[in-house]
Amino acid sequence: MRILGIDPGSRITGYGIIEKQGNRLLHIDNGAISTRSSDDLADRLKVIYQDLHRVIAQYAPDAVAIERIFVAKNAQSALKLGHARGAAMLAGVIADLPVAEYTAVEVKSAVVGYGRAEKSQVQQMVRMLLNLPEIAQEDASDALAVAICHAHSNALSDRLPGLNSS
Amino acid sequence: MRILGIDPGSRITGYGIIEKQGNRLLHIDNGAISTRSSDDLADRLKVIYQDLHRVIAQYAPDAVAIERIFVAKNAQSALKLGHARGAAMLAGVIADLPVAEYTAVEVKSAVVGYGRAEKSQVQQMVRMLLNLPEIAQEDASDALAVAICHAHSNALSDRLPGLNSS
Repeated sequence: MRILGIDPGSRITGYGIIEKQGNRLLHIDNGAISTRSSDDLADRLKVIYQDLHRVIAQYAPDAVAIERIFVAKNAQSALKLGHARGAAMLAGVIADLPVAEYTAVEVKSAVVGYGRAEKSQVQQMVRMLLNLPEIAQEDASDALAVAICHAHSNALSDRLPGLNSS
Repeated sequence: MRILGIDPGSRITGYGIIEKQGNRLLHIDNGAISTRSSDDLADRLKVIYQDLHRVIAQYAPDAVAIERIFVAKNAQSALKLGHARGAAMLAGVIADLPVAEYTAVEVKSAVVGYGRAEKSQVQQMVRMLLNLPEIAQEDASDALAVAICHAHSNALSDRLPGLNSS
């Protein structure tokens, strides 16, 4: 099973592709989509959507995982983040992929085993779990973390037939 | 020139199509896309995007106009609205249409001639300007209002060659 993890942002959207083979997790690719070059919101959303569309076409993932967000600094940043996150989710759902959402606590628990882990601990564990030569770019690393979370969640439902967590 | 106005919302997204022929404004169609049937955010975004995609394919507008939002009740509602608004803008920009944004004050000024007009005044003016038999559904009426605003803004730039407001 191949999973696309996404960490959406109004300036940078990270993505990461992993493959689950039995109990093993393989790193396929990761990257960061920058939308800093345009001040136009519609243009930025188009870049996020089309770049993720290309990633999906290239790597043919079976599922998309994205962090669920509850809080934002303020209404303005929430509004901006919402636009970017909506564009990212659409890229998955328009490609007919299931889109799973996980809270930050779920992601940290799945990757580090501790829901209040530091960001640097999560990055180190992502690097180790996927045998990366170095820590991935920050947003790409967060995207890989949510993909790993989905792989674990999915592994659970594989072991418990009839329970579908997605 | 044919304009698609959109009033995005996480539960209902209104749309309205008008045509500007010289100084005349013609009503083409309006409607409301309900996403209440699904609790799944990704599904709701897909409905907004695909329904607007269908409206664009059916009526072939030359431009999209959407209200610019500055405030929201709180970060949670801003986040939800941002997702829906992002999906609506994407439907336009993926169809290679220019997407213009107008503040509520600009829309009210264009339609009623007074930036602090009541919602009911805007609805009545939309009905009169477009010769509708009755007031359109609330969100569809708001969508027609922003389309009218774009038609007026556009009329101005037509009269002042070299000034492009879109």
